[in-house]
Amino acid sequence: MKKVAVLGSTGSIGRQALDVIRALPGELEIVALTGNKNLELLERQIREFRPKMFCPSVKPDISYGGEFLAAEEIVNHPEVDFVIVATAGKAGLSPTLAALRAGKTVALANKEVLVMAGEIVVHEARLHHAQILPIDSEHSAIWQCLQGEESKPQKLLLTASGGPFYHYSQSQLAKVTPEQALRHPVWKMGKKVTIDSATLMNKGLEVIEAHWLFSFPFDSIEILIHPQSIVHSMVEFIDGSLKAQLGPPDMRLPIQYALSYPRRWSNSELPRLDWDRINSLNFEPVDHDKFPCLKLAVEAGKSGGTYPAALCAADEAAVELFLSHRIGFTDIAKIVQKTLEQHQNISQPSLEEILAADDWARAYATRLSLGRCEEPERRSNP
Amino acid sequence: MKKVAVLGSTGSIGRQALDVIRALPGELEIVALTGNKNLELLERQIREFRPKMFCPSVKPDISYGGEFLAAEEIVNHPEVDFVIVATAGKAGLSPTLAALRAGKTVALANKEVLVMAGEIVVHEARLHHAQILPIDSEHSAIWQCLQGEESKPQKLLLTASGGPFYHYSQSQLAKVTPEQALRHPVWKMGKKVTIDSATLMNKGLEVIEAHWLFSFPFDSIEILIHPQSIVHSMVEFIDGSLKAQLGPPDMRLPIQYALSYPRRWSNSELPRLDWDRINSLNFEPVDHDKFPCLKLAVEAGKSGGTYPAALCAADEAAVELFLSHRIGFTDIAKIVQKTLEQHQNISQPSLEEILAADDWARAYATRLSLGRCEEPERRSNP
Repeated sequence: MKKVAVLGSTGSIGRQALDVIRALPGELEIVALTGNKNLELLERQIREFRPKMFCPSVKPDISYGGEFLAAEEIVNHPEVDFVIVATAGKAGLSPTLAALRAGKTVALANKEVLVMAGEIVVHEARLHHAQILPIDSEHSAIWQCLQGEESKPQKLLLTASGGPFYHYSQSQLAKVTPEQALRHPVWKMGKKVTIDSATLMNKGLEVIEAHWLFSFPFDSIEILIHPQSIVHSMVEFIDGSLKAQLGPPDMRLPIQYALSYPRRWSNSELPRLDWDRINSLNFEPVDHDKFPCLKLAVEAGKSGGTYPAALCAADEAAVELFLSHRIGFTDIAKIVQKTLEQHQNISQPSLEEILAADDWARAYATRLSLGRCEEPERRSNP
Repeated sequence: MKKVAVLGSTGSIGRQALDVIRALPGELEIVALTGNKNLELLERQIREFRPKMFCPSVKPDISYGGEFLAAEEIVNHPEVDFVIVATAGKAGLSPTLAALRAGKTVALANKEVLVMAGEIVVHEARLHHAQILPIDSEHSAIWQCLQGEESKPQKLLLTASGGPFYHYSQSQLAKVTPEQALRHPVWKMGKKVTIDSATLMNKGLEVIEAHWLFSFPFDSIEILIHPQSIVHSMVEFIDGSLKAQLGPPDMRLPIQYALSYPRRWSNSELPRLDWDRINSLNFEPVDHDKFPCLKLAVEAGKSGGTYPAALCAADEAAVELFLSHRIGFTDIAKIVQKTLEQHQNISQPSLEEILAADDWARAYATRLSLGRCEEPERRSNP
């Protein structure tokens, strides 16, 4: 029995992780749950799974004897051996590092952790012989394709659905509303990642994530638009052979693979591909001009230092502004670009410097949108 | 350096195996070559590679000191550690068994070996801890997809190009000439396998081959028509995840993979997939009514015993008759079916009984085509 802590159990990935665990009694034990926003749901989850530990945001009337602990203490606890980091944004950073330092296996759904602090995170994992397992469908696909391969691959091909507006014109894109953008044609996800999917920022963050997860050079990571989201990604090997991982677009599959690895488990609740209904799998190249966020992200990843943290924060701020109807859809990329242009990079940053870059970029991006950025503040450290 | 014997080096697969070996100096050493029909080419190959051993069909004026040996002696020789069986039909049976009994690794391109005598071949391999590696592109694909997987897969999906006539009507099929049938839209192969591709008999033989190579039940092996032959096959796992192996339709890739396994080698002569040119990968279900050979083969495989040997021989005879314009394209299936209907099966047959079934079916099928089968001879053993 793997003893599992789910950080962020009330979010989209957290809830699906609990679905998988619920469907597989006897394989997994929930020993800790944490959540932040939806406390009502968190308390229901705690009553159902009766974990040994949970976060202090829960009301103290949970009376069966579980322990109130901070996420960093939970992941350090000897009762935990597998940590699912399903939190959002920078909230996952500190517990992930704590889990890795304690030598725990971390299944990572929170891509900002690797985007913001990839070098530090990967270094800590190596130092403490801790494993980082991907939960993103694309990275899970690549990871599955790499199993049993002794030779380093030549190319990673990340597929992208292209989001709901892939064939929109520039002027149509400018008029996209939050309501339209939140209707993703294939995947059901949280709001932030749904908007990031529509701008292709999400794919850019995934490129950075893939770079760190698989120690792979940026120039050998390519993006392929694949609207059906059935081929979740591919790996090309040095002999020209490719492997692809396919499956219905359902996050429970990569979540379960991280939990079952290196084995696989049968789970009748997971959907199956029906080849009687799949007539074709379509692919097309990325239109970088129409979706500048992808290139912005890859460039930030290549530049390294605090750029990726600034990118993440500027994007998060811009997406929030878009969702509250304060900027247009195509303004998201513009705000991110202007923020990065004004960012003063720090190479090989400390965690504090990364968090400071995040603060700066978030504030700068928000001020940009309010038209108050004539005299940009250039500091990237406190 | 792997020391390689290529049996059938002048055929299509044999020549491509030599292309791979030629492109990778330092990794592989040719220690034996054998051929049967194209002796002029065989002598050129011997002069180029100067193997230590070759078959007695070569003229004795090859004077540099190589040894004349029968294929069974060659594979037994301590200088050989890797045997490529690229012979055609039943010719591969005896040398394959000899190689396995000597504990050698056998890369198998000759599918009749497993179709005719799968049980015996797999038993000898287990008994002598010898490996059988697939060279057929579909089986190589499945084998690549299975690497690193600890759990047994749920389903094998063999792809089939469908051949040149997949969308022909029944009456169009009846008029197909050998010249048309020999023009395969994707793969360049020998004549027999090209016709077998057009009738889908080849796919049926591959199902039987997959059954033995991967110890996999017939009912969990499915066929999917995929005209582009880019996805070479797929494996579905118990969690619903699938892996596919993709690549340009070029037999040198699976040949090289068998040679390089478990590693992969870079080879600039091998082609690469160009995703700028691949807009879609198409799939459709098999039309069993139009292509009865597939079902005939799978049924023969399920029935086991000497049925698959009778199937192979009847098909070989029928294809020869078709190529010499003595029967029509759709007669191939009819002749195979009638031969199987009249075959007296022997379960768990000896090698002699398998070869006798082959003799009987070949003769019966030929007589059928000549209209001389009013009183069928039912014997399946000598």
